[in-house]
Amino acid sequence: MSVISHVRVIGSGLIGTSIGLAVSAQKISVTMLDSDPQRAILAQALVGQGSTKKVDLVIIATPSSALKEVIEGEYALNPSAAFIDIASVKTKPQREIATIAGLASRFCGTHPLAGREVGGPESARADLFQGRSWVISPSAATSREVTALATSFIQSLGATVIVMDPDKHDSYVALISHLPQISASLLASQLVSAPSEAMALSGQGLKDSTRIAGSDPILWGEILSDNKEHILPLLEKLHQDLGEVIAKIDDLHTLEKLIRVGQVGRNTIPGKHGGLARNYAFLPIVIEDKAGQLAALFQECADAGVNIEDLSIEHSPGQFSGLITLAIAPYDVEKLTKHLLERQWNVHPAR
Amino acid sequence: MSVISHVRVIGSGLIGTSIGLAVSAQKISVTMLDSDPQRAILAQALVGQGSTKKVDLVIIATPSSALKEVIEGEYALNPSAAFIDIASVKTKPQREIATIAGLASRFCGTHPLAGREVGGPESARADLFQGRSWVISPSAATSREVTALATSFIQSLGATVIVMDPDKHDSYVALISHLPQISASLLASQLVSAPSEAMALSGQGLKDSTRIAGSDPILWGEILSDNKEHILPLLEKLHQDLGEVIAKIDDLHTLEKLIRVGQVGRNTIPGKHGGLARNYAFLPIVIEDKAGQLAALFQECADAGVNIEDLSIEHSPGQFSGLITLAIAPYDVEKLTKHLLERQWNVHPAR
Repeated sequence: MSVISHVRVIGSGLIGTSIGLAVSAQKISVTMLDSDPQRAILAQALVGQGSTKKVDLVIIATPSSALKEVIEGEYALNPSAAFIDIASVKTKPQREIATIAGLASRFCGTHPLAGREVGGPESARADLFQGRSWVISPSAATSREVTALATSFIQSLGATVIVMDPDKHDSYVALISHLPQISASLLASQLVSAPSEAMALSGQGLKDSTRIAGSDPILWGEILSDNKEHILPLLEKLHQDLGEVIAKIDDLHTLEKLIRVGQVGRNTIPGKHGGLARNYAFLPIVIEDKAGQLAALFQECADAGVNIEDLSIEHSPGQFSGLITLAIAPYDVEKLTKHLLERQWNVHPAR
Repeated sequence: MSVISHVRVIGSGLIGTSIGLAVSAQKISVTMLDSDPQRAILAQALVGQGSTKKVDLVIIATPSSALKEVIEGEYALNPSAAFIDIASVKTKPQREIATIAGLASRFCGTHPLAGREVGGPESARADLFQGRSWVISPSAATSREVTALATSFIQSLGATVIVMDPDKHDSYVALISHLPQISASLLASQLVSAPSEAMALSGQGLKDSTRIAGSDPILWGEILSDNKEHILPLLEKLHQDLGEVIAKIDDLHTLEKLIRVGQVGRNTIPGKHGGLARNYAFLPIVIEDKAGQLAALFQECADAGVNIEDLSIEHSPGQFSGLITLAIAPYDVEKLTKHLLERQWNVHPAR
């Protein structure tokens, strides 16, 4: 790649500022901008001093509604720079870029699959992209040089580059991200006037099913709107399936089938490290809910040479003990169980 | 309470066998039964030897479709015993009991709010009910003595008793458990023929939103069927709301409002220890994905005297580093951050 010495980031939100921090950590100059001068000042303070050097790469990290106007102005200022965006939908920016004379060869659309439930420069992290997937969607017009620069830049932030056609990308994220967002938000919205007596009976299932309903309304309204062509048929299918459940609520077979098909769908979700969903073994352990218990437990796992692949913590209302379920490799279960039982841990392997 | 010396459990699945184990741990005799003799033998072996003593308490832990026939036979055998069930829906068993002459005063409906995604006696745990809520729904006909016995029995298993009218119970679980189950199963079922290239882009959001879609189809088909009167209006409301999103997909305001109302609903879910959702602070830490790292991290938290309220682990496809986000009390953030940074941890507090 051509060496990058100065990056200009337009949009000082979570993603823009996180990129700024990660770039700055590589001793590359970054200029942070925003429509809100206060945010730009905060972001610039976080990433360090700007630069007057020639700009090699311009990153448009604004809401997608501002992309066209912003990139037009930036292209006029930095005609020899490369340009990337970070929007969650990839066909719309590409359509807009195509209307700006000369820009298409200098532009490569991208989408970092990283985010947090919180936003703003104050939530930014230099490591936000470490180990994350980052899709790039060069168009037929994008120059090889710009695609190569975008690729090596993204890799330098620690992310894994996935090259994907914009339309394919948009259809995929409609299914694996936008549909779940709508489903979770709709489900959570049914709770708005629930009596607290009912909510007191709720457990981890409801919590997990509605976690992403905490997302930002402005950001997500725009994402859903930008990708409505791909989302709409999925919503219509979901609406139809839900209608069928309603129509056949008296048929036990329909209800069983609903759960059964859901199980099959659930099993298509890949597990850790991008592979197919791995078959972990789960080891439940009851611990006292106080400082030091988790530490001691994990020290035991380390002593036994067992790697923890995942874990969940459950708390019960009104009680001060917790249930930890460790996800570990099936071949580690016996070893770890023995190790923990010998040391008086309250461990409960499946029999 | 009258002292219990012999409990008879009909139905040797997860709940029945877990009750058997918990009772047996109190040195009370338990007889385990099942329509499948092999399961009964396994369950009895797990809980220890049975007894020929007079039966004080009969627990019907069968699928709800078998309840009426089973309890009729058991009542004929043990007319002076107390009877409880454990079904997830409470009006249907009460209606059925009322048709069996003399039984209503001896019966108290109950529902332990505990379960696992796995079933069968081999998944049973004596501590399954520790710290969990357990609803009891005595009818007007239930004798005081039976209600008192059921209450103290459930408390002896470590659960917290919540007294609730059956119809109210059923309307509450329809909202906080059955509707989320249907929503998650419907969402997961949309993934059945998703290309693996699409699934490879999926993240924690999709995983969380569909976790309960892994539930057992036979068990859940019956639960949903038993509570269809309460579930139906909720499904119709969800169907209508989804229809409105579809009709107004071109209206950005509608999409924003969907996410905004979902946020409000999400905030009605109580947090740890049954209180209102607490405002935790979240501290992200990047760790190497190898044995011992979690242990060392939690030891640091213990050393700093900081209690971990909750945590999440994120893995990225193709990478071997992990992001741990600790949920801790807001007043602990500064202390723990300082402690960890001084010890070279890769910690990233919100700025």
